[in-house]
Amino acid sequence: MRVMVLGGDGFCGWPTSLYLSDRGHEVTIIDNLSRRKIDVELEVESLTPIRPVSERIGVWEEVSGHAVGFVNLDLATEYDRLVAVLEKIRPEAIVHFAEQRAAPYSMRNTHTKRYTVDNNVRATHNLLTALVATGIDASLVHLGTMGVYGYGWSGSAPIPEGYLTVKVPTPDGEIEREILHPANPGSVYHMTKTLDQLMFSFYAKNDGLRITDLHQGIVWGTQTDQTSRDERLINRFDYDGDYGTVLNRFLMQAAIGHPLTVHGTGGQTRAFIHIRDTVRCIEIAINNPPLAGDKPRVLNQMTETHRVLDLAKMVADVMGADIAYLPNPRREADENDLAVRNDQFLALGLKPTTLSEGLLEEGRLVAARYRDRVDPSKIVCRSVWRAGMETADDLVTELPAQA
Amino acid sequence: MRVMVLGGDGFCGWPTSLYLSDRGHEVTIIDNLSRRKIDVELEVESLTPIRPVSERIGVWEEVSGHAVGFVNLDLATEYDRLVAVLEKIRPEAIVHFAEQRAAPYSMRNTHTKRYTVDNNVRATHNLLTALVATGIDASLVHLGTMGVYGYGWSGSAPIPEGYLTVKVPTPDGEIEREILHPANPGSVYHMTKTLDQLMFSFYAKNDGLRITDLHQGIVWGTQTDQTSRDERLINRFDYDGDYGTVLNRFLMQAAIGHPLTVHGTGGQTRAFIHIRDTVRCIEIAINNPPLAGDKPRVLNQMTETHRVLDLAKMVADVMGADIAYLPNPRREADENDLAVRNDQFLALGLKPTTLSEGLLEEGRLVAARYRDRVDPSKIVCRSVWRAGMETADDLVTELPAQA
Repeated sequence: MRVMVLGGDGFCGWPTSLYLSDRGHEVTIIDNLSRRKIDVELEVESLTPIRPVSERIGVWEEVSGHAVGFVNLDLATEYDRLVAVLEKIRPEAIVHFAEQRAAPYSMRNTHTKRYTVDNNVRATHNLLTALVATGIDASLVHLGTMGVYGYGWSGSAPIPEGYLTVKVPTPDGEIEREILHPANPGSVYHMTKTLDQLMFSFYAKNDGLRITDLHQGIVWGTQTDQTSRDERLINRFDYDGDYGTVLNRFLMQAAIGHPLTVHGTGGQTRAFIHIRDTVRCIEIAINNPPLAGDKPRVLNQMTETHRVLDLAKMVADVMGADIAYLPNPRREADENDLAVRNDQFLALGLKPTTLSEGLLEEGRLVAARYRDRVDPSKIVCRSVWRAGMETADDLVTELPAQA
Repeated sequence: MRVMVLGGDGFCGWPTSLYLSDRGHEVTIIDNLSRRKIDVELEVESLTPIRPVSERIGVWEEVSGHAVGFVNLDLATEYDRLVAVLEKIRPEAIVHFAEQRAAPYSMRNTHTKRYTVDNNVRATHNLLTALVATGIDASLVHLGTMGVYGYGWSGSAPIPEGYLTVKVPTPDGEIEREILHPANPGSVYHMTKTLDQLMFSFYAKNDGLRITDLHQGIVWGTQTDQTSRDERLINRFDYDGDYGTVLNRFLMQAAIGHPLTVHGTGGQTRAFIHIRDTVRCIEIAINNPPLAGDKPRVLNQMTETHRVLDLAKMVADVMGADIAYLPNPRREADENDLAVRNDQFLALGLKPTTLSEGLLEEGRLVAARYRDRVDPSKIVCRSVWRAGMETADDLVTELPAQA
């Protein structure tokens, strides 16, 4: 299949591009390298030393024999170039990762709030209008987030896959209506994904676009079978307070002898997925598009749920780290239960990669290998949800000596 | 009260600015004159000869003794200037009309779809972030649309004011949840107002912004007590296929001897409000803001519902016009019933101005007075919801002689 991967240089996009290429798809990466530029802005780097995009693509061709295309293009601002690329490639599937994806960064300051909305909304909408304008019948697979649902809204009911049926009172008695799960975003970033959902609904209805929205949990892990074939193919590993995700941060913290940073009580329960499953889910999604005229297909792309504190304790036990309880920079419930349906991916053949000591150890080893690249002043989260919220001082000012 | 009226040079914004000024509020208009520029793009003009904004503001001061400020500013792109203006004026209330507001224009072509999303989303989001960044505690009153609800979704139940309580199934039995009415937008324009709603919910929750969203029906009428004080204060009257609204178009068509253009069967039932009530509703809304921490307050700003065909027949009967049934350029149900709750505005003191022969006659007289300004080639709707949909030829190619 001819597949365009928008945002194909990022943390999920790169391993997805290589996986799809390895599986025989003809892959073109579209990326404006914004994620690398935000590293420059934040004065931080991926823990793992990622290579320039053209180099990593060249290495992939060397080791796999598969060519991957690359176009440096800003989806939010370069509409005409997007149309030209679509018309040249005529993709059968488009995977859309090309959005600013960190909740803390989206709340960092006015600039980042505005950038997140301006970039994400326009990137998505430009893509939708370009598909309508060109008439290219590609199915679109978009990376959403579990965060569109919020937490604790549906009582003891597991979070459904996108839609739920509710009863609405009328003078003639109750009627049943299927609705898009109400939006309860917890940050400007999550909010943009709820805006995406409404755009998808409209363009599916009005123009018959075939859209799949994947509400993904928190991704952990670094490497896949493809990215581990050569060190120059290594995937990003974000550990900083804005872009680092919770479990990977714990592994990095354990690897360098930093306390594990738990915000509030750690009673937040969240959904998780390993990066190896992310890439598999994407291929399943492009192989199973909805039909023209269908509403967007929503799948929950997660394999397990964990309380943050339980994860911290597990990593602390296995790897001998301490836990530090820090003020929570987010406005969110201290504690929540969480059950999530993921029946569709299971039915479509996903075999979940769940948390295991082996995989945790693999993550710790990646972190340990590149520990000298850590800047300890970037670890504590400092992006607060409202001005004036308390943040912690640095817990470690110099990198501890090798354990 | 110090009030900023964003989009204060437009069809609703101008009479609102004058009404609030007349009532003793200190009004500053913020407008980038985009509506006038779209007239240039569409090669059409308001049926009524509107004066340049500085002139009409000067005339208003002459006849009323009240000064109204004006800043030419693009909310979607001039964030820093917006902040500077907010800090200078320190408004107590902000009325936000500054969005592209025509459904047909929003569906006209790729450019107008993208402009509608880029402009409306960024204007609203810039305003929200600017309020957060400056800490200015102004209440925000936004013009939404009845079109966010769609038509026919809630069976025989009247459309509620923004929120409804539904029953959600759980393993422990049904639970009640109040939800934002599911979004069912019928065009890219309406879609942007559903995106606004989610942004309002988030910023009210996260930052305590005080927001009122007015879901307005189709506005008809032209003049208010203020705009009729001097011909140079006259309000816009849009009659073209993109910006003209249905009842005003019928009045114009009757006035020039053009058949009344009904799309499809005319079985569409819609909500209406007269421009005189629009301006009153805005003042009621700024006088009754929600509290910080409240969810956005949603009021349905409409006073009556009518079937389009019934309106056409009424105008045809009273004024002796013919009815032409044209292909519908929109994708919408041929027929729908509609009942709408507007309890809040009634409770807050609105005395509805409903359809009357007197008001229709007033509209017809305005149209008749400026009939020579009509370009008959602009009357038929040509913006279609999907490429290839049928449109009618011009029904009249030369302006009929004066009746």
